[in-house]
Amino acid sequence: MKKALEGLKVIDLTSALNGPFCTMMLADYGAEVIKIEPVNGDQCREWGPIDEKSGESGFYCYVNRNKKGATLNLKSEKGKEMFFELVKDADILVENYKGGVTKRLGIDYEAVRKVNPSIIYGSGSGFGQNSPISHRACYDIVAQAMGGMINLTGYKETNPVKVGPSVADHVAGIYLTVGILMALYNREKTGQGQLVDVSMIDTIFSLLENALVNYTVAGIIPERNGNIDPSIAPFDVYECKDGFVAVGVGNDRLFAKFCTTIGHEELLDDPRYKTNTLRCDNYEPELKNIIADWCRDYAKKEIENIMDEAGIPCGPVLNVKEAIEHPHIQAREMMVHCQHPTAGDQYFQGCVMKLSETPGTVDTPAPLLGQHNAEIFGISQEEVEKLKEEGIL
Amino acid sequence: MKKALEGLKVIDLTSALNGPFCTMMLADYGAEVIKIEPVNGDQCREWGPIDEKSGESGFYCYVNRNKKGATLNLKSEKGKEMFFELVKDADILVENYKGGVTKRLGIDYEAVRKVNPSIIYGSGSGFGQNSPISHRACYDIVAQAMGGMINLTGYKETNPVKVGPSVADHVAGIYLTVGILMALYNREKTGQGQLVDVSMIDTIFSLLENALVNYTVAGIIPERNGNIDPSIAPFDVYECKDGFVAVGVGNDRLFAKFCTTIGHEELLDDPRYKTNTLRCDNYEPELKNIIADWCRDYAKKEIENIMDEAGIPCGPVLNVKEAIEHPHIQAREMMVHCQHPTAGDQYFQGCVMKLSETPGTVDTPAPLLGQHNAEIFGISQEEVEKLKEEGIL
Repeated sequence: MKKALEGLKVIDLTSALNGPFCTMMLADYGAEVIKIEPVNGDQCREWGPIDEKSGESGFYCYVNRNKKGATLNLKSEKGKEMFFELVKDADILVENYKGGVTKRLGIDYEAVRKVNPSIIYGSGSGFGQNSPISHRACYDIVAQAMGGMINLTGYKETNPVKVGPSVADHVAGIYLTVGILMALYNREKTGQGQLVDVSMIDTIFSLLENALVNYTVAGIIPERNGNIDPSIAPFDVYECKDGFVAVGVGNDRLFAKFCTTIGHEELLDDPRYKTNTLRCDNYEPELKNIIADWCRDYAKKEIENIMDEAGIPCGPVLNVKEAIEHPHIQAREMMVHCQHPTAGDQYFQGCVMKLSETPGTVDTPAPLLGQHNAEIFGISQEEVEKLKEEGIL
Repeated sequence: MKKALEGLKVIDLTSALNGPFCTMMLADYGAEVIKIEPVNGDQCREWGPIDEKSGESGFYCYVNRNKKGATLNLKSEKGKEMFFELVKDADILVENYKGGVTKRLGIDYEAVRKVNPSIIYGSGSGFGQNSPISHRACYDIVAQAMGGMINLTGYKETNPVKVGPSVADHVAGIYLTVGILMALYNREKTGQGQLVDVSMIDTIFSLLENALVNYTVAGIIPERNGNIDPSIAPFDVYECKDGFVAVGVGNDRLFAKFCTTIGHEELLDDPRYKTNTLRCDNYEPELKNIIADWCRDYAKKEIENIMDEAGIPCGPVLNVKEAIEHPHIQAREMMVHCQHPTAGDQYFQGCVMKLSETPGTVDTPAPLLGQHNAEIFGISQEEVEKLKEEGIL
């Protein structure tokens, strides 16, 4: 079975997270992704968890599976020459340097399009290529802060808090993939290459949903409010015997079922809870407390089953181990095994988009540093060694 | 200037958020998106903020801009007939019903491919099409819970908390766009249509980053830890005079600069802070407190400027109003105006992916209910009225 992106050649200059997450998707679905690392390797080869036996980074390995690996000193003339040779027949180039760095290195879009006018040049960075603060370095936490996400996350009573995982990095990588694929479709029709520029701040900002229109339409500046939704009630996370469960009761029909399910039919006659709007207004403290009290007597699996039976949207708050082992994640093949030459069996994230005819799969492990140098540059192992000594590879 | 996806016809059966967010992107970048709503409209036409003058939902309008609008009763025979007529020459269909609903309606992929074998059928749902719990309804909060995100977000000392905005819905919509565009590229090469199936749980699970490999490689089950990163220190959110700032100090060179910048050069000689690993181990309480004390004396804008000067990644925690007005967001055109026939000037999110040759733009407002019925079904206004009376449109 062919993969969707087979035949595409991608030059991957990315490191750490947003860029590699983008090229991981391209690789999972069949593109030939050639990861070019600096001579001393992508910085995230050092990031934990490190496999004790082999010294390989679990992080590096999952986000770089299915890619080929080369090294190249892009600050050397010879290195740059080899880079441009490689770029000549590439379909896509992806980079995630800080704004301005590719220009200084002489490998920005303007330079690359000169040798390959039809290339799609994907650029993922904190602030994009044309912001007044493009020059700044950006971590995920900075993007979450400036994009408006941290201010909207957490409880009223405590300080705002970031989203645990690096949501700005990941989602910027996914958006970059969208942009590249749009440009690719356009190129199929027109032959035209172009620059695709995605910023982590814009990425976070685009996820704020109705918070933005609440301000522009209604003049409201929304603030964090824990797990409570401003427009649906009950919609919250409740503590139970062995953890927490999320429950959402989105309309009157569901609310009637819910009250019966938790043995509180009297709520149905209560004028404070007649409509969703009233329930939103009167959710705290009484309605919340009644539900919280009920939940305390059950384990999260019990509540999940009871609510499933009643048709009420509900799910346990799972930790990583529980999520990995959940029948849903297993049935969807969202964890996959991969054999690594030095680290042995690896077990990590699978492919999200389920394509019925051209599915994504994990076929090859992340490359060792410079593993495919000879193949990619079309040179002998002796030449590889010589260029290594010269600090070029 | 042509847009990247011009010429593509998309039948959009989606409602609420994940599906409409996907088709919004397709529409922003040039596809003709025909939104088919039930006769009484997409439920989110009722969702706040509501424009007082016109009664239009700000939420509905931003996520459905650039689309054409039709109505159709898919439970009626005539409605289904009109649907299949429309689908015959469509390139893409997108739906986000609960698992099993399209089958019951007789409009699932198997039914649609019979009249259009080359169609790409995009499906966004809580649990996907082949999970043991595909039948369940899902809200964003349930996906965040079961996907493992809530467990990793919040402070140690307080209950776990969901990401404020609906990250599962949005990102599922972006992934669905990726999957559809991959299938589209494949179709350009092979003529082959297919089903693209994305689940909100899988979406969240895929964002957990190294939390998953921390468990599979190192046996650690990571737990929430506020704004602190397990592998970088200092990396935190600090309170200042007028709010909060995020600061990330990722390596020794930056740490040296940072200590000088905050007037605490003595930290550089402290053996507890010699390396990043040591700083991670010894960040709390002393190092954290020293930085927190320093931040308290400055406004967030002052800290942003000081850190920018020093080249240290930093950003203020912005609320929605501040984010909208920030020079970065303005320069990137991440807020755009749109003229709506009844609501007047609207101001909402722009396009994330900046494509140099075929940029996305917001050209037309969200449709009024059934606005394009005559044009889309190729019938007269009289016929529209007649079908309305019959409950078909």
